[in-house]
Amino acid sequence: MIKIALLGCGTVGGGVYKLLQQNQELIRQKAGQELRIVKVLEKDRSKCAALGLPDAMIAESYQEILNDDEISIVAELMGGIEPACTMVLEAMQHGKHVVTANKDMIAERGRELFDTAQQNGVDFYFEASVAGGIPIIQPMKQSLAGNAIQQVLGILNGTTNYILTKMTTEGSDFSEVLAEAQRLGYAESDPTADVGGLDAARKLAILASIAFNSRVTFGDVYVEGITTINARDIKYAGELGYVVKLLAIADENEGGVLARVYPALLPADHPLAAVNDVFNAVFVRGDAVGDIMHYGRGAGEMPTASSVVGDIIDIGRNLSHHSSARIGCTCFASKPFRPISELKTQYYIRLTVVDRPGVLAGIAGVFGDCNVSLQTVMQKSATAADAELMVITHNTREADLQQALSILKDKEFVHSIDNFIRLEGIAPRQ
Amino acid sequence: MIKIALLGCGTVGGGVYKLLQQNQELIRQKAGQELRIVKVLEKDRSKCAALGLPDAMIAESYQEILNDDEISIVAELMGGIEPACTMVLEAMQHGKHVVTANKDMIAERGRELFDTAQQNGVDFYFEASVAGGIPIIQPMKQSLAGNAIQQVLGILNGTTNYILTKMTTEGSDFSEVLAEAQRLGYAESDPTADVGGLDAARKLAILASIAFNSRVTFGDVYVEGITTINARDIKYAGELGYVVKLLAIADENEGGVLARVYPALLPADHPLAAVNDVFNAVFVRGDAVGDIMHYGRGAGEMPTASSVVGDIIDIGRNLSHHSSARIGCTCFASKPFRPISELKTQYYIRLTVVDRPGVLAGIAGVFGDCNVSLQTVMQKSATAADAELMVITHNTREADLQQALSILKDKEFVHSIDNFIRLEGIAPRQ
Repeated sequence: MIKIALLGCGTVGGGVYKLLQQNQELIRQKAGQELRIVKVLEKDRSKCAALGLPDAMIAESYQEILNDDEISIVAELMGGIEPACTMVLEAMQHGKHVVTANKDMIAERGRELFDTAQQNGVDFYFEASVAGGIPIIQPMKQSLAGNAIQQVLGILNGTTNYILTKMTTEGSDFSEVLAEAQRLGYAESDPTADVGGLDAARKLAILASIAFNSRVTFGDVYVEGITTINARDIKYAGELGYVVKLLAIADENEGGVLARVYPALLPADHPLAAVNDVFNAVFVRGDAVGDIMHYGRGAGEMPTASSVVGDIIDIGRNLSHHSSARIGCTCFASKPFRPISELKTQYYIRLTVVDRPGVLAGIAGVFGDCNVSLQTVMQKSATAADAELMVITHNTREADLQQALSILKDKEFVHSIDNFIRLEGIAPRQ
Repeated sequence: MIKIALLGCGTVGGGVYKLLQQNQELIRQKAGQELRIVKVLEKDRSKCAALGLPDAMIAESYQEILNDDEISIVAELMGGIEPACTMVLEAMQHGKHVVTANKDMIAERGRELFDTAQQNGVDFYFEASVAGGIPIIQPMKQSLAGNAIQQVLGILNGTTNYILTKMTTEGSDFSEVLAEAQRLGYAESDPTADVGGLDAARKLAILASIAFNSRVTFGDVYVEGITTINARDIKYAGELGYVVKLLAIADENEGGVLARVYPALLPADHPLAAVNDVFNAVFVRGDAVGDIMHYGRGAGEMPTASSVVGDIIDIGRNLSHHSSARIGCTCFASKPFRPISELKTQYYIRLTVVDRPGVLAGIAGVFGDCNVSLQTVMQKSATAADAELMVITHNTREADLQQALSILKDKEFVHSIDNFIRLEGIAPRQ
């Protein structure tokens, strides 16, 4: 029998406890041994009571778990960077294998965690830290390991995807839908981490590290949230054949990694365009496999527990076969980062301009002077005197686009530059 | 260094050779050792020459590979059941680990293969045998291992998906599109295995065995192909909000497994409905994870090589960690099969009937007498005297539906029962 301790018994911890009970026999047969939770560290006794945990199972202190040599797996499900990270490091130093769902911790302190796991010859698994129940970490480390990964493109945050889906289907504005999402419990009372793109950026840092075999931390990811997205942008994007999604993207060009999170226009026939509501999906382009996509629930009690328990079973197999630390950190390279100014993509820009002859030529002239060539221009009358102009550029360097916008905003015929959104997923799919 | 022999150097074998060269250093770092192809068994010397294989690498006989104790991995990429199966069994008996892309062999002789692998303590990997480059075997055995799988639903054959996509977008008939697919090389000159559903059935047998932990062979799968699908059915399905896809489905009910391949009507907003052309996708419903879908290229030189090389790398890790046979056969149960007559689903039926008052009542009466209740009836005028009638039933037992059809076909007001197609993917998604 393999003994497990849970750190934290909230939503995910409770799910893991339930799943190990519910599918006990099935899991025993797959792991080759019984996997049993013997200790739980949780200050909130009401959570333990709700699960019907016997008192003897509740640890008085973390020390009690660390010093119990019979416990070989620690599942850290508290979240947050500290004290979780210190506890995980201590567990490893005590020879315990660790499973975690903690994206914040890995995205900030991944290197230290992997180094410590390696030094102590223990397993460190984290499938649940990205995209909840969707298998993506293990497939990238195993089935797809023969590929040089060229791009990772993901919808990694359910809250923002729910908000953008509602804005699209109902034509509502951001703040309206956010309030509704908060009422329904899909968004937190402080929604910053979600709507600001930070949550997606942490998950992207983890995925990009694996994809490019080079450590990417949260601080290396360029981040914009969805708060500037307007119902109008979504409507016009639709008319032009696009949907707006908060995308987490990392690719490698000329040896450098560019990782970023921002709302983007995605062609309506792109596989990710159909990923709606709270669903997540990860799209990976490999040099051999071409394009693949994994889709499912990116959060929630049981989907997240599915990934945690899958990891526990795999650690159990390693224990049975004396092959712990079989797959460790895969960041054997140290690649430079490319700044967002070097991004080359297409852009959608919405401006309000004076409605008179010659203005379009003036705008096109500024873009042309900055090496920005235009693919599509769509005009709507805003008021009698003003026009709303939507422009889609050809492939452009971000630095050139920004320069054009900074010149345009001072032109007397430009009232305002209302938004600019990058286009993604345009390159011919393989 | 880990030495590998390839059996067969056609499309997939060539791809594996190229990929191991192309990403040599990356793969060495991931596997912890160099992985090198040292022998190739291939009668057609022109294939070897096209890859630039040195003569010394070409085996004179299979015996030469079997007796080479330095070769630890055999990649069987010839296809077909014999002599491939005998060669794989012999390789295992000589202590060699095996990777294969051979669905026919596993779907027919899986049990013997897994038993032999287990007896000899060797790895037997087969990610490429189902859905080409899409990671699905390993995720089901690892990341999703904590789930009791409830259903597997896949688009597993690229040729038929290409044909149905073209029939949908162009309104053409089956035979027309098949001829075009044959010209383009997307369909073989003898298309039976693809259009008859046999290829998908073999892949489903493999997936279902893993999903339900109970051996499912090709002969256990109920199979219908797409040859009876008419451009009209696709058109009417579209009007009713469905697309037609060749689905491979396996689920477990009351302890019994029902595995089947047939064309089905799928709601247009189902994630699988957007899987077009030669793409494949596998949709899995687990009791914890809910619904997930993996999408990508189900065939082709490099996508298939991606899966084969992923397997080789994983076997290499097992060799490095002395943990071969770490994950073996997971068919520890022996579940009964349910016959197609016990299927309970909704049905679409297209009939040509006499266009006169009372006929609809007569038809509804026959259905009602057989416990078939109707959800939707759509009528089109065919000629002055005839009407075309499309019926969608509520959930119905297949046996009841078949009885109703056998009574209807003898009614004087029914000219012909032109088609009946099952509906799938209707159950509320989780």
